[in-house]
Amino acid sequence: MTMPATARKPAARLNELTATEIVAAVGSGHATCEAVARACLDRIAEREPRVLAWQYLNPEQVIAQARALDQSGRRGPLAGVPFAIKDIIDTCDMPTEYGTPIHRGHRPDKDAACVALSRKAGGVLMGKTVTTEFANRYPGKTRNPFDPARTPGGSSSGSAAAVADCMAALAVGTQTTGSTIRPASFCGVFGYRPTYGELRCAGVMEAAGSLDTLGLLARSLDDIALYRDVLLGIEPAPIPDNLTAPRIGFCRTHLWPQVEPATQQLLEDAAQRLARAGASVTDVTLPADFERVEDAHRWISSFEFARNFTWEIEHHWDQISETLRNGRLKDGLACSYERYRNACDLAARCRQLSEPIVGDHDVLLTAAAAGEAPLGLDSTGSASLYAIWTTLHVPSLTLPVFTGPHGLPVGVQLIGKRNADRALFAAARWVWRALG
Amino acid sequence: MTMPATARKPAARLNELTATEIVAAVGSGHATCEAVARACLDRIAEREPRVLAWQYLNPEQVIAQARALDQSGRRGPLAGVPFAIKDIIDTCDMPTEYGTPIHRGHRPDKDAACVALSRKAGGVLMGKTVTTEFANRYPGKTRNPFDPARTPGGSSSGSAAAVADCMAALAVGTQTTGSTIRPASFCGVFGYRPTYGELRCAGVMEAAGSLDTLGLLARSLDDIALYRDVLLGIEPAPIPDNLTAPRIGFCRTHLWPQVEPATQQLLEDAAQRLARAGASVTDVTLPADFERVEDAHRWISSFEFARNFTWEIEHHWDQISETLRNGRLKDGLACSYERYRNACDLAARCRQLSEPIVGDHDVLLTAAAAGEAPLGLDSTGSASLYAIWTTLHVPSLTLPVFTGPHGLPVGVQLIGKRNADRALFAAARWVWRALG
Repeated sequence: MTMPATARKPAARLNELTATEIVAAVGSGHATCEAVARACLDRIAEREPRVLAWQYLNPEQVIAQARALDQSGRRGPLAGVPFAIKDIIDTCDMPTEYGTPIHRGHRPDKDAACVALSRKAGGVLMGKTVTTEFANRYPGKTRNPFDPARTPGGSSSGSAAAVADCMAALAVGTQTTGSTIRPASFCGVFGYRPTYGELRCAGVMEAAGSLDTLGLLARSLDDIALYRDVLLGIEPAPIPDNLTAPRIGFCRTHLWPQVEPATQQLLEDAAQRLARAGASVTDVTLPADFERVEDAHRWISSFEFARNFTWEIEHHWDQISETLRNGRLKDGLACSYERYRNACDLAARCRQLSEPIVGDHDVLLTAAAAGEAPLGLDSTGSASLYAIWTTLHVPSLTLPVFTGPHGLPVGVQLIGKRNADRALFAAARWVWRALG
Repeated sequence: MTMPATARKPAARLNELTATEIVAAVGSGHATCEAVARACLDRIAEREPRVLAWQYLNPEQVIAQARALDQSGRRGPLAGVPFAIKDIIDTCDMPTEYGTPIHRGHRPDKDAACVALSRKAGGVLMGKTVTTEFANRYPGKTRNPFDPARTPGGSSSGSAAAVADCMAALAVGTQTTGSTIRPASFCGVFGYRPTYGELRCAGVMEAAGSLDTLGLLARSLDDIALYRDVLLGIEPAPIPDNLTAPRIGFCRTHLWPQVEPATQQLLEDAAQRLARAGASVTDVTLPADFERVEDAHRWISSFEFARNFTWEIEHHWDQISETLRNGRLKDGLACSYERYRNACDLAARCRQLSEPIVGDHDVLLTAAAAGEAPLGLDSTGSASLYAIWTTLHVPSLTLPVFTGPHGLPVGVQLIGKRNADRALFAAARWVWRALG
């Protein structure tokens, strides 16, 4: 097993700096944008044959962007920060192929909102990172940077792996079920799914519009907060320093038996450590309706997905994987409108029910994954644990705090209130300091 | 003033049939898809120099599609129906230019969900209809089919004009403020804005994602219901026959003084006629909070719009109209996150407040426009009347029931409950029979 840079923690090379550190180094003249970009390209040259995080990478394009930034003297809030973009997100100067041969070589004519905002802030787009097919379950080529025999998770596979392996400081993924939180947990990085609807998805492939959000990946919590502000198009502000210990609701959910015993133990221990550090930690049990949310998520996402990909279904059925045809598409094409509507209604009811539950705490603490990244590359891991939180439209974060029985990372997931993402960051910082 | 075919009501030529009638004619062998398409092309050849509804039209492509349908013998629920697509919606075989020189010649590589679903159902895509710049306010070339000196309304200008002038039976537009209801009223056709989130927007340019929906235009209510089912990807079902007279809430809103006196009188008369026909008609006054919804809509739409078009702002500022630069973009770039959040919170509160108000009635009756289409082509008309309903995420319909003082059409707008669009259609049919 080869440990990636995040695990080895050597004296910091430029590619190992966080985004916040890069901005400081570039701002103070201690590093150029080009030097940072070259350090990332060197890392990629060394590690890409093993990790396979990139769908498109053109070193000349990267260097040209970095040089132009150095020459312009423009210093935005992401000055010189190398970022990666999941390959379901439009870029004006690179292909966007959605993880499928159907769209091989496709070139959009403009940048998605999140790409344009990243570049406007001074970021350097490194390239396009591997996605599963249409951000669904059929895996891409990427391997877990901690162990090439294991999945990196998905669907934002390359985004999580590239950040974990210090090939880029930041990455944009997406999440419709667990596509950011799961790979972040498996790859040992911070992953953030924002409140539904807040970060613009213009130029991002729609999988299931009533569930889709962007997802951000980084190697520090400050980086996540910084990147969120950049993508909101607002002046970045530091995470508020939460001096008082948070009220934490430990929410195992009815899916607890699906969490591996070792991970259960890590979470139980974490809850105790947080209590000892001064947090109020109480058990939270969700009402029985929530046991049906995973099923509702299945029908909502499948119904919408199957309509969004009508063109591919009609014209390229034989180029769609069996996994997708016999999964989302089969479900979605068979789903009646009544079943879809009932699922949407259940989701809406649970959103309302969840407000006082989440509102009684600063954060809920729950599993970010059943365990370490599983062996094998045929699957990106179970999606069960994520459907509840994604369907509720609440913001969530995974923090890379645990090490599993094989020495691989496991995250802890924190859930915040809708439209209170900064409060989630503040509580997460407290948790990170107590556990990290 | 030249009256378009909808006003003249001659013996029906094929291009003057509704979608429902075309499906019947093609299904029974009384017309071929090609004959219907040719009738529409003939109409376009005759009238396009005056109406200017089309951004892209290639008769050979149209005939080829129609012939292929005739030869295949496939008979979907839109068999042979000529439909038009607003030029902010992706098409795999035609340009998509968003009403701006910035994207001239842009060719997406696939059909938007709504286009693919229309074709799958047997529809014949006639071409791309004129939109205002980025579906905002700077007008395109289209003129009102009833009077070329008047605006057709916008932003779905060409979509409404093409359907009104019998160049196509159906059209897809979009609505972020009043972009479907207003041009439908001005052009004398049925216009429908669905419940927010229900009809998939994959492949449709995002203006302001938390407000955008598709908008459908047709020359009959049955056609609207049929097209909705096709775009939901479900088996079409006829509008339920509502035997009991509906409970109608007459909702003038605080913007009533902006409605022209002649239109006020038409609406008051209509309310009386509906009551005489047996409906329960009661006055509805909205709570004071609703007076701030138009302002909230302004900040929500501007904040989101300005971020979605970051690429154009950064690279093509000088090709953006003054109207857009000094309107949405100026507002959006100046809008603080706090102001945006407050606006979103007000919108969410009013959505909750509106539920019992709308729920006490089968429909609300309100103005679809201040009056007839105004003279001049520099503006597509006032957007004030629409912001409340669009922001509430409720479904709405305009029915072409009135004739204004200059002999031009004026619609009446009906508002339904969220996620009860078919109930809205049933009530609208009753209203249409009573007023139409």
